[in-house]
Amino acid sequence: MSKDQLKKLIDTAAGRIPAQAVIKNARVVDVFGGGIIRGDIAIVDGVIAGVGEYQGETVYEAEGLYAAPGFIDSHIHIESSYVTPEEIGRLLVPCGTTTIIADPHEIVNVKGGQGMEYMLEAAKETALDIQYMLPSCVPATAFENSGGAVGAEDIRTWLKDGRVLGLGEFMNYRGVVRGEGFALDCLAAGLEAGVSIDGHSPRVEGKDLNAYAAAGIITDHECTTVEEMRDRISRGMYVLMRHGSACHDLENLLEGVTESNAGRCMLCSDDRQPKTILEHGHLDHHLRLCVSKGITPLNAIRMATLNAAQCYGLSDRGAISPGRRADIVLLHDLESFKAAKVFICGELTAEHGKYLPPVKRRDASAMRSSFFVKDFSADKLRLKLTSDKVHTIELVPGGVVTKKTVAVVKRDAAGDFVYDPGADIVKMVVVERHKNTGNVAVALLRGYGIKSGAVALSVAHDSHNIIAAGVSNEEIEFAVQALIGQGGGILLAKDGKVLEAMPLPVAGIMCEQSGEWVDAKLTEIHRAAHESLGISGDVEPVMTLCFMALPVIPEIKLTDMGLFDVTSFNFSCLEAE
Amino acid sequence: MSKDQLKKLIDTAAGRIPAQAVIKNARVVDVFGGGIIRGDIAIVDGVIAGVGEYQGETVYEAEGLYAAPGFIDSHIHIESSYVTPEEIGRLLVPCGTTTIIADPHEIVNVKGGQGMEYMLEAAKETALDIQYMLPSCVPATAFENSGGAVGAEDIRTWLKDGRVLGLGEFMNYRGVVRGEGFALDCLAAGLEAGVSIDGHSPRVEGKDLNAYAAAGIITDHECTTVEEMRDRISRGMYVLMRHGSACHDLENLLEGVTESNAGRCMLCSDDRQPKTILEHGHLDHHLRLCVSKGITPLNAIRMATLNAAQCYGLSDRGAISPGRRADIVLLHDLESFKAAKVFICGELTAEHGKYLPPVKRRDASAMRSSFFVKDFSADKLRLKLTSDKVHTIELVPGGVVTKKTVAVVKRDAAGDFVYDPGADIVKMVVVERHKNTGNVAVALLRGYGIKSGAVALSVAHDSHNIIAAGVSNEEIEFAVQALIGQGGGILLAKDGKVLEAMPLPVAGIMCEQSGEWVDAKLTEIHRAAHESLGISGDVEPVMTLCFMALPVIPEIKLTDMGLFDVTSFNFSCLEAE
Repeated sequence: MSKDQLKKLIDTAAGRIPAQAVIKNARVVDVFGGGIIRGDIAIVDGVIAGVGEYQGETVYEAEGLYAAPGFIDSHIHIESSYVTPEEIGRLLVPCGTTTIIADPHEIVNVKGGQGMEYMLEAAKETALDIQYMLPSCVPATAFENSGGAVGAEDIRTWLKDGRVLGLGEFMNYRGVVRGEGFALDCLAAGLEAGVSIDGHSPRVEGKDLNAYAAAGIITDHECTTVEEMRDRISRGMYVLMRHGSACHDLENLLEGVTESNAGRCMLCSDDRQPKTILEHGHLDHHLRLCVSKGITPLNAIRMATLNAAQCYGLSDRGAISPGRRADIVLLHDLESFKAAKVFICGELTAEHGKYLPPVKRRDASAMRSSFFVKDFSADKLRLKLTSDKVHTIELVPGGVVTKKTVAVVKRDAAGDFVYDPGADIVKMVVVERHKNTGNVAVALLRGYGIKSGAVALSVAHDSHNIIAAGVSNEEIEFAVQALIGQGGGILLAKDGKVLEAMPLPVAGIMCEQSGEWVDAKLTEIHRAAHESLGISGDVEPVMTLCFMALPVIPEIKLTDMGLFDVTSFNFSCLEAE
Repeated sequence: MSKDQLKKLIDTAAGRIPAQAVIKNARVVDVFGGGIIRGDIAIVDGVIAGVGEYQGETVYEAEGLYAAPGFIDSHIHIESSYVTPEEIGRLLVPCGTTTIIADPHEIVNVKGGQGMEYMLEAAKETALDIQYMLPSCVPATAFENSGGAVGAEDIRTWLKDGRVLGLGEFMNYRGVVRGEGFALDCLAAGLEAGVSIDGHSPRVEGKDLNAYAAAGIITDHECTTVEEMRDRISRGMYVLMRHGSACHDLENLLEGVTESNAGRCMLCSDDRQPKTILEHGHLDHHLRLCVSKGITPLNAIRMATLNAAQCYGLSDRGAISPGRRADIVLLHDLESFKAAKVFICGELTAEHGKYLPPVKRRDASAMRSSFFVKDFSADKLRLKLTSDKVHTIELVPGGVVTKKTVAVVKRDAAGDFVYDPGADIVKMVVVERHKNTGNVAVALLRGYGIKSGAVALSVAHDSHNIIAAGVSNEEIEFAVQALIGQGGGILLAKDGKVLEAMPLPVAGIMCEQSGEWVDAKLTEIHRAAHESLGISGDVEPVMTLCFMALPVIPEIKLTDMGLFDVTSFNFSCLEAE
């Protein structure tokens, strides 16, 4: 802040000059003291000058509405919404969200530093303040090919650059707990810069958790039980209670929130698709859940505001107090948390569910070319099984975890797998798309339920190679080729025809469409997947496949390099003994 | 932390290698979660690896004692203890204090940057971690001469230098609230550097307080009422609840602490003399007071540890958790808070009230020459009153606040004031000692009670010129000359002889003696002041005089430039109308 700005701020606060804007007659939620203060909020240069009796050039009448600090999502991957940063702003701000802590590790897996640059630039086109954490574990493992890679030197360079807030979720918790060189190099680069380092430590406990926390990692959003939550809090970590489109941990974890530890808890979505946002909102949804579970509105709001600001060193926000950003949500009540008006840096940015500024977009053309697939053909899909006893990737209903099971399958004369309508087992393939390696890996998926055609995606965490599943080599080949042809996305094919498709031209994982468009498309895709391909109703046809190539989630997955046993953390044979 | 250290820390935490030291069987106070965890504390390279079951090379048996994080005094002026940093460490650590946030504004008023350098160097000789805030308002006003001066450029240079933690108490609250240029320049330099800025805002309220908080000032230790405390907390400021030798605000303020705002409260002493430390301890005393007033031991400990660490960005301490400094106090109970053992960076530093390391001292010779007084003689003490009606500085019992009153006094033929044993009014003088200005200012002090001789000090907040009071020009002249002769300190004289003296050769405000020596000396001085000079028992003869030259405390004071009316913030005539 310049001296002149400081003077203007002080003069406004002291009431010597009128505020640029004033929100009159609000019930201001005091996240520090814990009460409600009736008064006007004076704003100048995007900053709160004070709460009291003020006059202003522009007057907003709050008419007794509650004024809370703008909500902060403490951990989200924008890419999981299939839309770009400009659009996520349009979707989230009307829900009261004014800041998100975003980890763009999907696009960085595809496009490396160029992807990070694009996300930073695109964020400038939305009023939502997007604070990025630099993805720390790209690729997720050494057992796959991704487009980008992040090492200790990259971390050093980016953190010095200053446009990122900290180091994103340190998924390589094994490497940390075991004290492995590469993990330590990356961590040391983060510690050196003195930034916040996010965690990801599912089921880590005891001394391993001590080791993980000792390494300087300050958050975790992977807790599913109250015990895990308490273990992390007592070790000085903040717990980010998650409620996204896929994972719903918040309600369980609320049982563990006490008056004493509430200051170490925050709210996050991790992944949140347009459908969920349009139907349930964003952090307003989390807040409703909190209050319905007996958390006081004050503590709930603190978890969505001040606590996140403290955890991430964003001392310029998180409260309605002098000198902080005028990120303010006017709420009808502290139960529904529906936002009547949302201000960002003092500007009225959303009203009654509508985002007010025009939606401009950054040029994403550099993200468009993201398919480099060598010599792909149905030939590469053929198996030469020497026995009919194989390992299958068996879906565990309702999640992204799988079981390694054994099945007896039919083979043709050449030893290739043949789909048997009587057994719910199909071919699943991962086609490398970043480096022209020509890698194609094939495995057998059980429980997906598909009965005809094929599904192909270029959204496959975290490396985002092409993943496809279908009833024949030809159906799979057609779907993969058609997907490449449309520049990536989601595609359903049957009998050599495209049934439904959602192109995702931005790095093969996002589109420049609206959230409503994505929602409508996905609805059509889900309908076709169930009705035309016969995928069973209790399987989410897209999300399920998305996670089948992620080799850090148990128990068995498929990367472009082969079938991967997550338990032994090494490759596995397709044929069973 | 280097990669090798990180690896050692992780390996220790994970239990793969034995800890360097382990504190066995402690009841660890979990300041995050709010409970007590039974276990061993593993330590490596001065850092906590974890709490659990651990083996170590050096074993300390806690035998079920409580283990709390080392205490942090959030605001103290070391100089007010009359001892140097090495000695303050020896006095405070046995009380459980492991970090102090010190504002060396007394010595910087005397010696400028050279004084700051000396304090930084001296701090290296104690195990106590002394974190310095750079004094922000030196001199306190433009109406006096000090030895050092701090401007915006000095602030910029020091904050860049990196050895100071932030900007010390911004006493010039008038300047801030009024938006005055010099104050804003200094503030802007602090804001630019992104450091914590301490406050000092007695009785500031309403919009003025909004202005003070908007300026980025994050603490206040001048609250005396619960209302003032709440006002500051709701504006995002931390409240430092003070209990020092002079000011006892803590007990009042505890009435205002709630479960909801406790996280914004801390404990500080501001000024704490050896007598108080030796008799009552330090923050252990504060903690006893907290618990006796109904604060939970957990919240009390948080106020003395985690909260201060958070406020000042000392994320490396304030809790017993993996990765933090092994600053640990073993306590017999959570009521007396008596420290059995104190560890700093994992080293056993105090045991059963004794500081264990040898006390070494930095060379303070550069601080010794601090008296530059031109042409001082009794002539300069003579008044030429044209009337017998004068303004007096009238002491208000029990504090450092004064009243501006009018009195009728006796004069000699030349118009000089003549002491009348029937009226409790004597001459008080301030003699400039830093710049050879030759300034001597004379005023009349009422209520001090001195009946013979004179008292002279070189401790006179904040400029620390010489201040003296006595019954005749000759007694005052002798005392001042003798004080200069001994290189400063405190001196009582009568009939041309020194009665008692405590030399303070380090900048005229500190000595290189022990706290016990200071205590014994002050006891003798107080006794002589009452018994030999007749100063009334309810007047603290030294402290009272110390504050008579501080022109930021109401209502009337005396600087080397003249009688100063704090209310109108300008000089006043000695003669009344």
